[in-house]
Amino acid sequence: MSTFPLKPDAERVRSNIESLAAFVDESKPGWTRRPFTGWYQQGRDWLREEMAACGLDVSIDAASNLIGRIAGSEPGLPPIMIGSHTDTVTGGGRYDGIIGVIAGIEIARRLRETGTVLRHPLEIVDFTAEEPSEFGISTIGSRGMVNNLSAEMMDRQDLTGLLLKDGIRMAGGRPELIAGEARNKGDVSLYLELHIEQGPVLEQTGNKLGVVTGIVGIHRYRVTVEGKPNHAGTTPMNMRFDALTGASQMVLELESICRETYAEQVVGTIGKLHVEPNGANVIPGRTVFELEVRSLDADILEGIMRRFQESVHRIAGERKLQAHVDCLSKSEAIRVADDVQQTIRAACRETAPSFDLPSGAGHDANQLARIAPVGMIFVPSRDGRSHCPEEWTEYEDVALGVEAVARALLLFDQKL
Amino acid sequence: MSTFPLKPDAERVRSNIESLAAFVDESKPGWTRRPFTGWYQQGRDWLREEMAACGLDVSIDAASNLIGRIAGSEPGLPPIMIGSHTDTVTGGGRYDGIIGVIAGIEIARRLRETGTVLRHPLEIVDFTAEEPSEFGISTIGSRGMVNNLSAEMMDRQDLTGLLLKDGIRMAGGRPELIAGEARNKGDVSLYLELHIEQGPVLEQTGNKLGVVTGIVGIHRYRVTVEGKPNHAGTTPMNMRFDALTGASQMVLELESICRETYAEQVVGTIGKLHVEPNGANVIPGRTVFELEVRSLDADILEGIMRRFQESVHRIAGERKLQAHVDCLSKSEAIRVADDVQQTIRAACRETAPSFDLPSGAGHDANQLARIAPVGMIFVPSRDGRSHCPEEWTEYEDVALGVEAVARALLLFDQKL
Repeated sequence: MSTFPLKPDAERVRSNIESLAAFVDESKPGWTRRPFTGWYQQGRDWLREEMAACGLDVSIDAASNLIGRIAGSEPGLPPIMIGSHTDTVTGGGRYDGIIGVIAGIEIARRLRETGTVLRHPLEIVDFTAEEPSEFGISTIGSRGMVNNLSAEMMDRQDLTGLLLKDGIRMAGGRPELIAGEARNKGDVSLYLELHIEQGPVLEQTGNKLGVVTGIVGIHRYRVTVEGKPNHAGTTPMNMRFDALTGASQMVLELESICRETYAEQVVGTIGKLHVEPNGANVIPGRTVFELEVRSLDADILEGIMRRFQESVHRIAGERKLQAHVDCLSKSEAIRVADDVQQTIRAACRETAPSFDLPSGAGHDANQLARIAPVGMIFVPSRDGRSHCPEEWTEYEDVALGVEAVARALLLFDQKL
Repeated sequence: MSTFPLKPDAERVRSNIESLAAFVDESKPGWTRRPFTGWYQQGRDWLREEMAACGLDVSIDAASNLIGRIAGSEPGLPPIMIGSHTDTVTGGGRYDGIIGVIAGIEIARRLRETGTVLRHPLEIVDFTAEEPSEFGISTIGSRGMVNNLSAEMMDRQDLTGLLLKDGIRMAGGRPELIAGEARNKGDVSLYLELHIEQGPVLEQTGNKLGVVTGIVGIHRYRVTVEGKPNHAGTTPMNMRFDALTGASQMVLELESICRETYAEQVVGTIGKLHVEPNGANVIPGRTVFELEVRSLDADILEGIMRRFQESVHRIAGERKLQAHVDCLSKSEAIRVADDVQQTIRAACRETAPSFDLPSGAGHDANQLARIAPVGMIFVPSRDGRSHCPEEWTEYEDVALGVEAVARALLLFDQKL
């Protein structure tokens, strides 16, 4: 592979990730940097200095996103944006989100060090609060950037009584200006994000880079199974209406349906299940579980849920239980445009063995896709783990990801 | 059926049950009279007066059981004891335990009203705290009576910091005298208890009285299933180690094994199940459930658990999960002696259609069985419900139960 002028300094990338990793709530396991906390603010202060040190023009937008900008050579072109986030889940790791922001900073530095000037302006963005927040919303900053935060969301309170809009203000935003400053269609040429895969596919297939084909849609449902909470000792087996054995059959049914082969990859999970009254000597009277199915293809999800609901009602009928299935939410899948995929694929091929795959998790790219083409590159996660202290990506793999983003940036800067 | 001189006054039985039902914690649903509370004490004060009013010699023993005694005609015979309890579970009903104590009082009253004198002394006992208590123990009073409360149990604390031994003292007992005053083998001729069935068998078979053949043994286990708590979106179906789907298969396996036909009736229940981390978007990494199996035959229970454990390990192996099965406790079954069953069966047949069945629940009789022959009679529970506000037994069925106990008492008084 040819020597690439913007080749990142792998050691500097590592050192930057580790510097940012030092700003954490040490009372929590692993790496915890929750938004709207002092640790988060300290991390951003450090980031702001890094951005300034690579010659970026730093600002905070109305939604409190931290943005570093370099002007382009051709006036009037909308910027190319590279971004991700620096908040973590509680007890999370060092890579999720962080590598995407550090990648942007490294690329800006390499541009400056090599005297490379792009046609388009370049914006490096640290989006506020991407992870599920105490306000019950994810991707707060990127939502704000594209004016997708409702008044109801802005008035939500966390457990300390803080209103979301006051949190945004504390982080340097001006909530009242969010709508007016929002980016609209045409305001951004392209959004690029480097992220850890958070899954095992790259590792298991022996690839270093993932060309993201899209971000799956997520359909969430709650299933309530009602039986009769009778005495575990005095109710013969054939006179029971056990909400847990019924629910167990449903859990296995969803797994079985989702294990079939579909035109697009599908995953289905029951992560949350609650038994009532949950006493060792009481036959479960009620079991409630939450399920989600994810795929790039909404029709496949609808088909799966039709079959699953039929199974739920059949199982409930056979066991003389009551069952209700309520839809909690449906997020739409994002497809990465074919031409964007092609360019990213070319950039990746120049860098390391790569593999096409959908993103099973949501990202800030979901929000940016409302106003601009988006593209994403993944690097491997060891054992597929993330959102935990064991989250790990080899630093050389992170550097390969940064290089692939830089290659893609140069290609897009010419094409767009 | 012949007119029976001790035939109970059904209206008086109803009225006494309703009087006792008035002493409840009204802040709780249904009927709640927890031991070592003011409501419990008020109920016992009322009971004490009722006992005194039927000419019983009332005392409180070292374990705080309330006992009313009538002398017998033959000196030196150990007493026949009729008892049950007046505490309830939280949000319980009006019949569980209560009818057994009220039955004793009604029988004592009928003896007095008819001038009947028994050969044996008769003791009517309201046992302290039969239901699962905040100290993690059931049948506290009857345990105390037979010296089966360990020093460790006596020092247990409830959530308010009360020590069990201080609770017993508050209820009028003298914990330091429990061992010395305890009843030993030979000190009681027979223990008789009338109780609601707490199950659906009598109702479903159209019988009014149940001749209890024994009290099942209970073997309890905890099963821990360990998988990997991966991201629900990014982990393909074939790369998952889902502790909940594995556990669901085990739940169904236990149900299936316990639904088979055995020489003695068997029930098996998983009432308690807990998922970790229990997040909608995380594949369950760990599922812990508690199971219990009950039968009169310990060998059947051991055989079932051997098969179930094999299934657990097979399922875990197939799914590449880890599973551990830990035994929490094994209580021994109590068998009602054949001659006691025969006499009770004769007494029941004189009264109403009756049916032989094991008790699936534990009772104060479990403790008394350590020192004396025991016998129990059941009356039907509507829909098999108990430990809930819907607990209901027709008052005429309660009266049939009281009559059957009275008939059995006269037969035993002659035989023993």
